[in-house]
Amino acid sequence: MDYRPVLEQIHATVQPLLDQGRVASYIPELAAVPLRQFGMAIVTLDGRVHSVGDAQVAFSIQSISKLFALVLALQAEGDALWQRVGREPSGTPFNSLVQLESEAGKPRNPFINAGALVVTDILCSRYAVPENVVSESLQKLSGNPTLHYDARVARSERAHSDRNAAMAHFAKSFGNLRNPVDAVLDAYCRHCAITMNCEDLARAVLFLANRGVNPRNGERVLSASLSKRLSALMLTCGTYDAAGDFAFRVGLPAKSGVGGGIVAVIPDTCGICVWSPGLDESGNSHAGSLALEMLTTLTGRSIF
Amino acid sequence: MDYRPVLEQIHATVQPLLDQGRVASYIPELAAVPLRQFGMAIVTLDGRVHSVGDAQVAFSIQSISKLFALVLALQAEGDALWQRVGREPSGTPFNSLVQLESEAGKPRNPFINAGALVVTDILCSRYAVPENVVSESLQKLSGNPTLHYDARVARSERAHSDRNAAMAHFAKSFGNLRNPVDAVLDAYCRHCAITMNCEDLARAVLFLANRGVNPRNGERVLSASLSKRLSALMLTCGTYDAAGDFAFRVGLPAKSGVGGGIVAVIPDTCGICVWSPGLDESGNSHAGSLALEMLTTLTGRSIF
Amino acid sequence: MDYRPVLEQIHATVQPLLDQGRVASYIPELAAVPLRQFGMAIVTLDGRVHSVGDAQVAFSIQSISKLFALVLALQAEGDALWQRVGREPSGTPFNSLVQLESEAGKPRNPFINAGALVVTDILCSRYAVPENVVSESLQKLSGNPTLHYDARVARSERAHSDRNAAMAHFAKSFGNLRNPVDAVLDAYCRHCAITMNCEDLARAVLFLANRGVNPRNGERVLSASLSKRLSALMLTCGTYDAAGDFAFRVGLPAKSGVGGGIVAVIPDTCGICVWSPGLDESGNSHAGSLALEMLTTLTGRSIF
Amino acid sequence: MDYRPVLEQIHATVQPLLDQGRVASYIPELAAVPLRQFGMAIVTLDGRVHSVGDAQVAFSIQSISKLFALVLALQAEGDALWQRVGREPSGTPFNSLVQLESEAGKPRNPFINAGALVVTDILCSRYAVPENVVSESLQKLSGNPTLHYDARVARSERAHSDRNAAMAHFAKSFGNLRNPVDAVLDAYCRHCAITMNCEDLARAVLFLANRGVNPRNGERVLSASLSKRLSALMLTCGTYDAAGDFAFRVGLPAKSGVGGGIVAVIPDTCGICVWSPGLDESGNSHAGSLALEMLTTLTGRSIF
Repeated sequence: MDYRPVLEQIHATVQPLLDQGRVASYIPELAAVPLRQFGMAIVTLDGRVHSVGDAQVAFSIQSISKLFALVLALQAEGDALWQRVGREPSGTPFNSLVQLESEAGKPRNPFINAGALVVTDILCSRYAVPENVVSESLQKLSGNPTLHYDARVARSERAHSDRNAAMAHFAKSFGNLRNPVDAVLDAYCRHCAITMNCEDLARAVLFLANRGVNPRNGERVLSASLSKRLSALMLTCGTYDAAGDFAFRVGLPAKSGVGGGIVAVIPDTCGICVWSPGLDESGNSHAGSLALEMLTTLTGRSIF
Repeated sequence: MDYRPVLEQIHATVQPLLDQGRVASYIPELAAVPLRQFGMAIVTLDGRVHSVGDAQVAFSIQSISKLFALVLALQAEGDALWQRVGREPSGTPFNSLVQLESEAGKPRNPFINAGALVVTDILCSRYAVPENVVSESLQKLSGNPTLHYDARVARSERAHSDRNAAMAHFAKSFGNLRNPVDAVLDAYCRHCAITMNCEDLARAVLFLANRGVNPRNGERVLSASLSKRLSALMLTCGTYDAAGDFAFRVGLPAKSGVGGGIVAVIPDTCGICVWSPGLDESGNSHAGSLALEMLTTLTGRSIF
Repeated sequence: MDYRPVLEQIHATVQPLLDQGRVASYIPELAAVPLRQFGMAIVTLDGRVHSVGDAQVAFSIQSISKLFALVLALQAEGDALWQRVGREPSGTPFNSLVQLESEAGKPRNPFINAGALVVTDILCSRYAVPENVVSESLQKLSGNPTLHYDARVARSERAHSDRNAAMAHFAKSFGNLRNPVDAVLDAYCRHCAITMNCEDLARAVLFLANRGVNPRNGERVLSASLSKRLSALMLTCGTYDAAGDFAFRVGLPAKSGVGGGIVAVIPDTCGICVWSPGLDESGNSHAGSLALEMLTTLTGRSIF
Repeated sequence: MDYRPVLEQIHATVQPLLDQGRVASYIPELAAVPLRQFGMAIVTLDGRVHSVGDAQVAFSIQSISKLFALVLALQAEGDALWQRVGREPSGTPFNSLVQLESEAGKPRNPFINAGALVVTDILCSRYAVPENVVSESLQKLSGNPTLHYDARVARSERAHSDRNAAMAHFAKSFGNLRNPVDAVLDAYCRHCAITMNCEDLARAVLFLANRGVNPRNGERVLSASLSKRLSALMLTCGTYDAAGDFAFRVGLPAKSGVGGGIVAVIPDTCGICVWSPGLDESGNSHAGSLALEMLTTLTGRSIF
């Protein structure tokens, strides 16, 4: 399929929308990103890249890193991980502590902050420098050996992490965090601060469209079954408290970040990444969500 | 594809599990259903029926009727419906009032009880006898002109509907119920008490696998887009508070009922219904969930 | 003590405040009450009445009737009542259902709506016409044989009682309501619609200041111990979700109603009633709360 | 009044109850305290001490220190303090974070942990070593210049303070904590670890029974009005989530701690302290609560 005209149509259509969202403002580094940017990339299983706009501009992947941290934790722990993290949509905002209290410190899923902190704790128990393990994994998946986290963003985020610290201490008070809170927060803020562009991210999720195997080198990342299950989790929990609406409108497994990026997957077909820094009320990229909705509408491709 | 051997393998495997679940006990009529029953039917787009076990034994469809009531309400109201009902997973049990209070009487989605009551209220505003409209719609979709609701089950359910009455009055106190609570509860309890078997139900959901068109007669039930979106909603919200786990394990859009039935869809392929009255803790059929999980594992078919 | 000058000073001080509150608007009859009214009465143990302003104007006692319904239920059930109703402040608004869900249908205290409905249910199990038992009890306590409920207010309230119906059905779904919901709501709306003036109400609570004995006729209403305990309950739970603040500012056991009345007690000294229809955000009389605060400040009398 | 026989009767009556409660177990130092201990002291305004049992055995005052920290914060901030802490009963356990989330980081009252942390933060902004200011204040109030905090208990508590750390970070994320979380927790754990006996504590609360003036030296601690208001706050919020029940049964302003101590006040009469390490389900001393209930029953003294 030729994605070029589709991408161009999307690119043209979203232009008037780029001013509508709001840049994430809770740390100065993210708040400084100019609003009027938009990039989108589609990488098919054969490795061909289709992209438009600012698809090679690097941005802070933020919560998208939760997906790759989870992949590493699943590789390490397998199904044992689910004893410490659930896999249900939360029904509450990504940074809520309410659910954690009523469910005794077990986060609802690995994509809300509390869940990602527990996942990071698992990596902290395995690896000396977990943030580097995440970025090395992304280097391999994307084929870009230079990507790394932005130390300034990580420091800034770390300096504004009281809410995450509250969650981490809370989980620890229930015995669901094994490492020192400071160490977990350090690693968490760093892997969230990894910087990538749309093309690299679209490549990085391609294994999810290919039943768990990285098509670039034939390496198995996850079993076929687990790869599908991870996609299911993205669909039900990947876009914060708007996952139901996102599935309804877009119909693709996806994971978003407050940096404005969203990765998505069409099974057996392609990996996708769209980026635009303006966020809607749920914290998902405003133009990015609409771009993905247009993509499934124009191509007739969705998982349903 | 020949589904026969798969169905037989599933049938054999679930036998030891049939005692494990618990029959719904909140009304005497459901509590009296014998536990050791299991049926499963797959109907492909060409109309061929593959079934095993008690696939022709009629059972109370219960919450599965919420799906068909919603189809009727969408036909009548279109997107205006979403002003009165959300489309996010609830994160709380199907009969919880907490969410309704914090979100001012707008139920999270049409598959929790509160949402289905609002959907039924919409039908009450349109139709003199809404429960008959639901059963007539099911007669047409399944090709079985004799199916109807079981008046005894409906009466029994109505006599034990304080929790639903609480929700209906609560929604009404926020202005999100237009008809008298008694009328809405009558209609609701009756369409939940419709009796069908697996083969008829598998046929009845086939339009969802066929982009909104009933393949038996070529009639369009919903637009292709809305049909896909409804499937997305089933995936994120169709199996009570266990939708995330169900999507993770099974990976198919599905809707369950406390009568032990579950309908599911493989897009562009088939409609499915499985039934076994023993429920797990979430209120979904225990053997039914496992049967669907086996189906996707054995056939390699899921939407992810 | 001569309360006259104190009452006059209060009366003069509150005049500019009478426009600030808002009349209860959820039923037309209450919404029509003119804002600029204020009355206050103090009745000492020897029967002397000190009053000011509109102290002889009758108003709808509303939730103040919960106090007298509770007295009747305690007379009938004694401590067994506490198995069905708690005695803790609720921490949530008076008409919240959240607490009822998390605590399995046992209302936190008898002064929130859910609790008063259970108390009324207890009276319904004992008496054919419970609302008359409440008004007869108030006739005896106040010495006014003509007081009764206002049928028009009761009907209007009954026609707008979806929220209370939701609570009653909810409690019933947990087995904590024994009579038909309609019967309980009828009785509840009627005893809330009793009409009294400040002087009568100040007399009616005098037994609480007199260790449980009605000083007018020497009749024991409650044991000394239970009378004190009921006062404690008024202090911790009597003024909706603002009980802590009210205790802090006023320091007297009190019970308020959305009709704008507040009854209060100074142990071993007097019964008090103040009325002004303008309510603050918590649903307590705005000028009435300030009047009571002034009373304790000017007289140096509080229970602390 | 001669309190001796009353105290002796109480002492005899509680003996069989001393085994029934459970020692606080969340830190080893408190868990090691032997269960079978009971002391009680009453100090009247004229300075006379009436005591029984282990009234001179020192114990960890724990949450009772929240009362004295609050007195210091009120002296320093006055009513401005109420912009950062509420004065309503919480309706949730003392260490719950739920309320903090729904009310944007403002704790419901200064006696739940979150509120006491904000109070401690206020002291941290004023004083270099706030814990010493609390203990010096207690030295003056009790007349015992040797009392201090137990460094071992403080360290142990600090090492198990994840839940409090979660609350502190949470409050900080809303801007309601000004000092570093570690500094606040250090000070908090230390003033909670102050060690005192019943006689000293009964003396220390005597100013609350004396309209704000320490009767030993005539020094004003708080204004008469504020002293009464603080007593009101103790009544509505002083005994964790059981304050309503405690007010109902005992009818005295009181503050409890998980070390097993409870201080109480009879206005214009005396200060009281009872201690017994076995706690009931709410975290209040089991025998201590009953002792206070007996005291008000036997003497006919309560505030109601």
